[in-house]
Amino acid sequence: MAKDIINREENYSLWYNNLVTKADLAENSAVRGCMVIKPYGYAIWEKMQAQLDKMFKETGHVNAYFPLFIPKSFLSKEAEHVEGFAKECAVVTHHRLMANPNGPGVVVDPDAKLEEELIVRPTSETIIWSTYKNWIKSYRDLPILINQWANVVRWEMRTRLFLRTAEFLWQEGHTAHATRQEAIEEAEKMIQVYAQFAREFMAMPVIVGSKSESERFAGALDTLCIEALMQDGKALQAGTSHFLGQNFAKAFDVQYQSKDGSLEYVWATSWGVSTRLMGALVMAHSDNNGLVLPPKLAPIHVVMVPIFKTDEENEKIIERMKDIQAGLAKMNITSKIDNRDNLRSGFKFAEWELKGVPVRIAIGPRDLENGTVELARRDTLSKSSMPREGIEEYIKNLLDEIQENIYKKAFEFRKNSTYIVNDWETFKTKIEEGGFLMCHWDGTSETEEKIKNETKATIRCIPLEDVIEEEGTCVYSGKPSKRRVIFARSY
Amino acid sequence: MAKDIINREENYSLWYNNLVTKADLAENSAVRGCMVIKPYGYAIWEKMQAQLDKMFKETGHVNAYFPLFIPKSFLSKEAEHVEGFAKECAVVTHHRLMANPNGPGVVVDPDAKLEEELIVRPTSETIIWSTYKNWIKSYRDLPILINQWANVVRWEMRTRLFLRTAEFLWQEGHTAHATRQEAIEEAEKMIQVYAQFAREFMAMPVIVGSKSESERFAGALDTLCIEALMQDGKALQAGTSHFLGQNFAKAFDVQYQSKDGSLEYVWATSWGVSTRLMGALVMAHSDNNGLVLPPKLAPIHVVMVPIFKTDEENEKIIERMKDIQAGLAKMNITSKIDNRDNLRSGFKFAEWELKGVPVRIAIGPRDLENGTVELARRDTLSKSSMPREGIEEYIKNLLDEIQENIYKKAFEFRKNSTYIVNDWETFKTKIEEGGFLMCHWDGTSETEEKIKNETKATIRCIPLEDVIEEEGTCVYSGKPSKRRVIFARSY
Repeated sequence: MAKDIINREENYSLWYNNLVTKADLAENSAVRGCMVIKPYGYAIWEKMQAQLDKMFKETGHVNAYFPLFIPKSFLSKEAEHVEGFAKECAVVTHHRLMANPNGPGVVVDPDAKLEEELIVRPTSETIIWSTYKNWIKSYRDLPILINQWANVVRWEMRTRLFLRTAEFLWQEGHTAHATRQEAIEEAEKMIQVYAQFAREFMAMPVIVGSKSESERFAGALDTLCIEALMQDGKALQAGTSHFLGQNFAKAFDVQYQSKDGSLEYVWATSWGVSTRLMGALVMAHSDNNGLVLPPKLAPIHVVMVPIFKTDEENEKIIERMKDIQAGLAKMNITSKIDNRDNLRSGFKFAEWELKGVPVRIAIGPRDLENGTVELARRDTLSKSSMPREGIEEYIKNLLDEIQENIYKKAFEFRKNSTYIVNDWETFKTKIEEGGFLMCHWDGTSETEEKIKNETKATIRCIPLEDVIEEEGTCVYSGKPSKRRVIFARSY
Repeated sequence: MAKDIINREENYSLWYNNLVTKADLAENSAVRGCMVIKPYGYAIWEKMQAQLDKMFKETGHVNAYFPLFIPKSFLSKEAEHVEGFAKECAVVTHHRLMANPNGPGVVVDPDAKLEEELIVRPTSETIIWSTYKNWIKSYRDLPILINQWANVVRWEMRTRLFLRTAEFLWQEGHTAHATRQEAIEEAEKMIQVYAQFAREFMAMPVIVGSKSESERFAGALDTLCIEALMQDGKALQAGTSHFLGQNFAKAFDVQYQSKDGSLEYVWATSWGVSTRLMGALVMAHSDNNGLVLPPKLAPIHVVMVPIFKTDEENEKIIERMKDIQAGLAKMNITSKIDNRDNLRSGFKFAEWELKGVPVRIAIGPRDLENGTVELARRDTLSKSSMPREGIEEYIKNLLDEIQENIYKKAFEFRKNSTYIVNDWETFKTKIEEGGFLMCHWDGTSETEEKIKNETKATIRCIPLEDVIEEEGTCVYSGKPSKRRVIFARSY
């Protein structure tokens, strides 16, 4: 058992926090609400970035970089947008410090007040559309398909590592199109890219859907999302893609001359995923021993621990391990030999389990003699003795199997935690147990609001896949409905 | 000739600005002093990042991420550091906006004043060493070899795209060591990594040296640097690596227990390069037609322009180009077929010259018949007719040759612009012409200061390679000196 990790059944929230900090993914910093992403956590984020970036480029996007700061007046240009973001932002008001005239340290120089305050970007629609205005004249300048990797700041009162932090890392795509249809297609394409990434790389089954009006991004006409179910039965929004209509084009007066010479406002999308995905990854698969990382995102695929009594034994074992390591490296499998001399092997086993390394190999003197290795899988915690001969090929296939198995397990869990609910009493009971509740809803914000107030459940999405089209009556109001939506409590 | 680019001989500064904006590298944003890095410019930066990141990892470093904000009190903990950075920083004082009670728009909410102001990081030594304090207990926790890719902000009054902007992108390495010697070796190792990168990838000859005391990083005991010479004869500092001694360990009380049980302060280095390298790249190699990109950093290696009269001709030419493109792709050579139908080929030629694409291929109907292509080199502007057969292999070798030739040209330029200067009258004349002046200096800050005041020249570095060790007398004071240093005016 890993040290100092509370059981998930006992306190899920503390269990999560234990995992994130003790597996060296991240920790709270000296700045309230801001986290330090530690090397092991950042290595996972780098793998996510590399894969997403590849997928964005394959779908025709390029990267660029826009300023960290947004003039205060820009935020106000789109009415809903300012409503959504002005309440929680970091405001830069001065550009200089000076020696404290009344004591030690430094103070803000009152003479260095900015004429207009700058907001640290909570999202970049406004600064980007003010830039696009100069880039777009004619239909020949469209589409613009740009992505940005950046840090953003939203002042949060209650923060949790990765899930909700004042500063976080993300990517934000901002595209400009000549037609409404093309923008809608772009928004749909990108939510599918996110869904594919979540399923194939994070081993996380997600449901693709659209948000109800009240849950939309501030300034969007439609928000598409991927929703995942965590092991405590709460939903987590893992990515969003917005069809912004002409709202930002109108706010920043971005028009283009069409083929027939007329002036038209440009159509927009934006889409993003963030370091929140790290939280989703942890909560979707981990157990009481620690992280369970899908091989495709694991910084280390295989850890090797020598079991020895004498230095001579150790030397021979390490030699064999280096041999295996070289074979694995040829197949792009990353391995680590843990030859720290001050720790017991049991401690090492627990530590690498905590860190979620998919495969562990232990070799002792008897293995050397017999030409075997002891191989342990992190996902099933099963152990077996295997011939050393051909172990590299075996591991290569095993990693694929583990990737698939982690997905299947999460998929089964979601299936077993998804309920068709038709009446309000059942809803109230079921929502306490957690899970996705598939319900009819009358389509009004009033009903949505009442359900939220009574049960803390929100509409996670109106699913776009595997849609259950059927006549029914709203689980709350009894009014007619044509399709089911997903209710859940969420992160 | 490329459109609207002023000649470099006429106005070097405007020429530079023309290139950066018209080649679509970057532009000024709506936020004073902050730039927008456009996709073409960002693609070059991504190539720089990828290569540097690879070199950092090969030398044992890992990436992590630390907060954007630094509590004001942290800056004051290292006396020289606060002196160096407090004068030019963005200060966050509030965390909320509110609807303007007296009119439209939003205003800062006076109730949302922070207890302690936050500084947008100008560099991260303080926040990182406050974190390392919790990570380092024993010699077993050392060394820590961490790098961070991030944005930083230094409030500059006079800004120039890439060279000096309020916000810029960079990487900052921050390492912690048990011994003085190990930290010194790390600082030296990393300046050599930068030098290798500059020479092999940017095709930019640089001189490795150490800074004089007055030019050191605020808080460092020694600053190593790479200095490059631009085509106008001014020097540009392209990267620095600092030996920080125990200054930050003492400021943040970071001690470790050594093998023999005693408590010792930790030794530190930090090192960084930034988007300033983009400016260096532009100024080192470009000409009056536009950018000249070294193939190893060029987003597009080969551009292909069809020359045709009829649609039928065009189709056949494009087909041949796709064939060549496929062959190039197999060798990891990136190419682009410019089949825009609304532009003349002459215009396209000028545009791709402006953008510095190393190789251009044009194919016309006669080339189709003869099995030839017209091939143009960007570095020499020479053109030749080549057989289509084997052109992929030819280009592969040519790209290596171009990379080398660009370096050689810059190296020759520097050689011819480096002068041994022994007397003050010659110094004053030569410094007006530009270049590196190799001079004896008496080693005092007073002399350095006087030279700077009289000529605007500074000591760029005390070279560590090809050192001229000889007795001599200071070019200004006439006092004895044992080695020459490099004086120049600089960016």
